[in-house]
Amino acid sequence: MSINDRSEGAFNEEVKNVTTSRSKWHVPASIVSKRTINPIRETVHKMNAKPNPDKALISLALGDPTHFGNFKIHENCIDAVIKQLQSYKANGYPPAIGCEEARKAVAKKFSTEEAPLTSRDVVIGSGASDALNIAIGALCNEGQNILLPRPGFSLYQTISKSKGIEDRYYNLLPDRNWEIDLDQLVTLIDDKTVCIVINNPSNPCGSNFSRHHLELILQVCETYKLVIISDEIYEDMVFGSTKFYPIASLTKSVPILKISGLAKRYLVPGWRVGWILIYDQNGVLDEIRSALLSLSNLILGSNSLIQYSIPDILFNTPNEFYEDTINKLERNASISASILSKIRGLHVIVPQGAMYMMVGINIKEFKDIKDDLEFTEKLLEEESVMCLPGRCFHYPDYVRIVFTPPPEKLEEAYNRIREFCIRHHI
Amino acid sequence: MSINDRSEGAFNEEVKNVTTSRSKWHVPASIVSKRTINPIRETVHKMNAKPNPDKALISLALGDPTHFGNFKIHENCIDAVIKQLQSYKANGYPPAIGCEEARKAVAKKFSTEEAPLTSRDVVIGSGASDALNIAIGALCNEGQNILLPRPGFSLYQTISKSKGIEDRYYNLLPDRNWEIDLDQLVTLIDDKTVCIVINNPSNPCGSNFSRHHLELILQVCETYKLVIISDEIYEDMVFGSTKFYPIASLTKSVPILKISGLAKRYLVPGWRVGWILIYDQNGVLDEIRSALLSLSNLILGSNSLIQYSIPDILFNTPNEFYEDTINKLERNASISASILSKIRGLHVIVPQGAMYMMVGINIKEFKDIKDDLEFTEKLLEEESVMCLPGRCFHYPDYVRIVFTPPPEKLEEAYNRIREFCIRHHI
Repeated sequence: MSINDRSEGAFNEEVKNVTTSRSKWHVPASIVSKRTINPIRETVHKMNAKPNPDKALISLALGDPTHFGNFKIHENCIDAVIKQLQSYKANGYPPAIGCEEARKAVAKKFSTEEAPLTSRDVVIGSGASDALNIAIGALCNEGQNILLPRPGFSLYQTISKSKGIEDRYYNLLPDRNWEIDLDQLVTLIDDKTVCIVINNPSNPCGSNFSRHHLELILQVCETYKLVIISDEIYEDMVFGSTKFYPIASLTKSVPILKISGLAKRYLVPGWRVGWILIYDQNGVLDEIRSALLSLSNLILGSNSLIQYSIPDILFNTPNEFYEDTINKLERNASISASILSKIRGLHVIVPQGAMYMMVGINIKEFKDIKDDLEFTEKLLEEESVMCLPGRCFHYPDYVRIVFTPPPEKLEEAYNRIREFCIRHHI
Repeated sequence: MSINDRSEGAFNEEVKNVTTSRSKWHVPASIVSKRTINPIRETVHKMNAKPNPDKALISLALGDPTHFGNFKIHENCIDAVIKQLQSYKANGYPPAIGCEEARKAVAKKFSTEEAPLTSRDVVIGSGASDALNIAIGALCNEGQNILLPRPGFSLYQTISKSKGIEDRYYNLLPDRNWEIDLDQLVTLIDDKTVCIVINNPSNPCGSNFSRHHLELILQVCETYKLVIISDEIYEDMVFGSTKFYPIASLTKSVPILKISGLAKRYLVPGWRVGWILIYDQNGVLDEIRSALLSLSNLILGSNSLIQYSIPDILFNTPNEFYEDTINKLERNASISASILSKIRGLHVIVPQGAMYMMVGINIKEFKDIKDDLEFTEKLLEEESVMCLPGRCFHYPDYVRIVFTPPPEKLEEAYNRIREFCIRHHI
């Protein structure tokens, strides 16, 4: 009798007999999931410290500018989404690589004379994270290697290791405003090196590469035929006379996948809309274009309401909104650098952009703190100030500061850090 | 001199000399991207046909209920999102597995006495596609195998093959309302079989398993210790006296990852909000819980605005909205079955739920049509009616009909199909 025709409970004993090798539930996690590691989560998880109950917690750890309420989306962006909601026409599936309207708007907004784009060159993903995941996945095989910045944003490692790609780290030089150590970089390259990820302006460094330095990077990549994945999610977020150059605008030959999105410029990281811009004036990325398309089929892109709002968001948000964001960030950066640089035991590298700075800890000057992890743990326990230890970014003996809190909160946090350092200084 | 100190254009000739093995740009697509195949896209791409310019195109191919404007989101759902937009508090990063508010609401909504849930059992993903991608990725390794339905939704294959997991197909039986052929299913199982994907109600079949059949499936899975991934995105979308049973409500021992989301119930497939519900009364999925968490870190989940709207969407959308959707679908299903079953050369399996039906083509009764692909091509060319050939679902000599268009469009399409079949019948 067919199993389909059995009555309940009368399941074939014969079938059971053939299954001795599967007699107990044992459901191990996949190898891929085990190697998908988020160093920030791992480190924070290991931190034993709890905030001091007598002091209000101030977090300088969250790379989310919306957290404190002082950096807010522009109302035109809200209106753009409401318009789509009320149209009843933006709820269906867009194409996996993004709707044409959005891709066209992104191409138009980010085209330059030196590096023109059409909608064909744009792939919309579910946040810059998905865009990075797709870009790295399109280029690299298990067993190959990828060059990542140290210190650097931990997601590059999470994605690469998840795919079995070897992560090799090139050094950024704190004494040269976090330029890449190109001499050390070239020692990492071998026949299995596929591409390099650069992140400019940088999380966690708050640095911005000069035009000259970008040109040297391009020369190295041209020489070694390294595709560049350029994470420019903080593009244009630079201070004072510093100028941001999209690296794609400086080359006619090196193929570049630029990663960016709405998250930081429009202060909506939770909206999960990122993109890959394909720069390939040399015509060497045809296979990669197909690969990006294939991989975008796995999760089918980002929210349709926001996708259809992209033309309005990109073209109807006043420039003053963006200038205001940068002015506020710059003010915070300046407060941060001026207070922190006067604290004994700390070494400040003044940020040029983004929302971050790395602060060195002169460990030997502290009597009872052995490393960056203990520094951040004790700081949290005693002063209820939370920042991430440098090891989250492969860079011990530093801490990363996110300077997006309102100035009065920042000053309060830095005053507490000052007290803390005085207390623990030799 | 360090490369960093070079002037433009004076890039080291020595460095160039060591790079002979990397002297030309060659950027192949990754192996993973090449095996990430969307059979629907591949098939449609191969179709040579163009619609008849004298007849307006009617698509019965799109699994998107919002396409024709007759199935619309409820205004309360729109208001829920507007409320979040105007709160200025739903733009930041939610946790990678989803915000607590959303996970709690989903747990509450889908808990049953037999299969209770807490927010701990919910992982929010970027659409049910992402949820499936994470669930399969957490369970299966490259080289292992997964059991998939035939006919079945093509994304299961796309995801599995992308990860190097062998896809093995169990048959659904058209003459038994697309029940699983359990005898054939057990022949597929070996030591490398990790899990089975079931899809109930089914795309492309429009079928709904009886309680008895679900219990037999559970017995097989209990015997062979197969974890079930149950794609129930069309849950409760069943017609007449048919009753839908969540499979998790029928077992105390078989571990189940249920996939569902907002897409079909709330008519917002483009919003990209899906979830995994973890049913593990036996306590065998601890490693898998961690794996789901790890994998959710890769792209950081779905849009925050919608996540924070989930409590309102789930609890403030009137039941009548959902009943109205089902009534309209049921009416369309009935129109479809009654017209198509009278067409010579076609074999109709009456749908019990979802938005789909599979229609068999008695190929031998047609004088000049050799298979399902040619049937759909000629139908498009002559009658401007588009449907997908069964091969997109691993099931040749059938076509899949999506019956979401308005009744008058459906009738027009079916009248054209009738003319077409009369013309080509022997």
